[in-house]
Amino acid sequence: MVSNDGTARAVAERFRLGEGPTRVFGIALDDIGPGRATTSMILGADALNGFGAAHGGILFTLADTAFAYACNSRDVTTVAQSGTIAFLSPGRAGERIVADASEIALAGRSGTYQVVISGEDGRVIATFQGVSRATGGTVLNQVQG
Amino acid sequence: MVSNDGTARAVAERFRLGEGPTRVFGIALDDIGPGRATTSMILGADALNGFGAAHGGILFTLADTAFAYACNSRDVTTVAQSGTIAFLSPGRAGERIVADASEIALAGRSGTYQVVISGEDGRVIATFQGVSRATGGTVLNQVQG
Amino acid sequence: MVSNDGTARAVAERFRLGEGPTRVFGIALDDIGPGRATTSMILGADALNGFGAAHGGILFTLADTAFAYACNSRDVTTVAQSGTIAFLSPGRAGERIVADASEIALAGRSGTYQVVISGEDGRVIATFQGVSRATGGTVLNQVQG
Amino acid sequence: MVSNDGTARAVAERFRLGEGPTRVFGIALDDIGPGRATTSMILGADALNGFGAAHGGILFTLADTAFAYACNSRDVTTVAQSGTIAFLSPGRAGERIVADASEIALAGRSGTYQVVISGEDGRVIATFQGVSRATGGTVLNQVQG
Repeated sequence: MVSNDGTARAVAERFRLGEGPTRVFGIALDDIGPGRATTSMILGADALNGFGAAHGGILFTLADTAFAYACNSRDVTTVAQSGTIAFLSPGRAGERIVADASEIALAGRSGTYQVVISGEDGRVIATFQGVSRATGGTVLNQVQG
Repeated sequence: MVSNDGTARAVAERFRLGEGPTRVFGIALDDIGPGRATTSMILGADALNGFGAAHGGILFTLADTAFAYACNSRDVTTVAQSGTIAFLSPGRAGERIVADASEIALAGRSGTYQVVISGEDGRVIATFQGVSRATGGTVLNQVQG
Repeated sequence: MVSNDGTARAVAERFRLGEGPTRVFGIALDDIGPGRATTSMILGADALNGFGAAHGGILFTLADTAFAYACNSRDVTTVAQSGTIAFLSPGRAGERIVADASEIALAGRSGTYQVVISGEDGRVIATFQGVSRATGGTVLNQVQG
Repeated sequence: MVSNDGTARAVAERFRLGEGPTRVFGIALDDIGPGRATTSMILGADALNGFGAAHGGILFTLADTAFAYACNSRDVTTVAQSGTIAFLSPGRAGERIVADASEIALAGRSGTYQVVISGEDGRVIATFQGVSRATGGTVLNQVQG
């Protein structure tokens, strides 16, 4: 629905104003809707590890950013409780990578989300599962604009 | 042992030359030895999320960096296969946070590591468990200096 | 494809001969194919915890069993390296629960799988992410019949 | 302290009355105290997988049982939210295995726990990290004796 997508986008845009990693790594918000979000970035030198591949922490950061948009997309303030990431294929210097977050399930205040990070050739670089917890309140009223 | 600590330090220093997040976030290497490493950083604006607290991805990055040093500390090239982080307390803007990584166990090519991230007042901010896999070769010969 | 489903079923049936938990908890194999499997069980007294709800370990066992069938479904011997489970809703005494395992991605010897456990009313009880590693060989030749 | 250990033991013993897996797999409670617990079992045929080694789900069950005793050891009713297990070495048929659970940290209602499962020869079979959440109330008043 347009109106739900509108809420999800408004929350994500509000978050983005304060997010350091979004600014530092140029994380784009490619798509957003209720329970889902897509983010992307180019793997510049700042995002690489000592082997010259994508740093695991920056892959997690891209996934976690998509997860945060997805789990706050209905404007109920929600925080990450835990996240697990599995690394399947190295991300290459200069490559554009995309993280697709989708809601698996909600139950009471808790939720679980899956995020898949893919490379330019479509191979899967990493998969992520996050657990969220709603804390009450709304993002659009809480976070300073 | 001094010589093992020396190897561990040499590997970590070699990694640090190429690590983007170490440069961007000013991640310090405070201690290093066989199977263990301690990293720290100050939570500047670049490390915050949309709520004004430490971004989960940057907490993961600090932990993952300590994990990488610990699991490569014997100069056997080793990569992360997966990592799980649980968030217990928000990291505050301007706070110095410390990640202590220690080896739980090694078995064949696999290993598991625990990392605890603490704040200035000693409270635990996050706990991390990582799974590593040795790929063969040595870091000091492989990574470009 | 019928022939791929046939291989997947043959591997699962071979496993089932030796699986203690399948026998103890009456775990059914409801569906199987390349990269996917569905298992189910009824939550009898043997599967409950001290609160009278489904024991987390038995929920993990049901998910892990589906995961094992899914990741061995092409008859390449594959073992679990790690698994993460998030508990969303208690499983109730006497309830029939179902675990649906599906492949997220394969890369070289590694793979990741998602399993969702649902209750009779369709609510999600738990979600699981597993990481697998192929060790070589084939199940149909290795496991004793 | 003797009195704290006494509370921890009383909670664990109350749980054990209702635990199916404890009965089915003969899980022993070897040690218990505030924030810690040790459980053990012998890997009989009921605990094996299709490869003839310890079933991952039963390893998780042993760890999760120790985790439950540890996180309820102060008689504040607490449930598992999530758990991650990494498998390092197969558990062998007939072997006695031991799970040592210890508290990493508590923060508000949340806590994290580490469990290490070892074999008879001291090798580590699996390592586990669990996240708990206190729900309020006390076990000794809530769980039916």
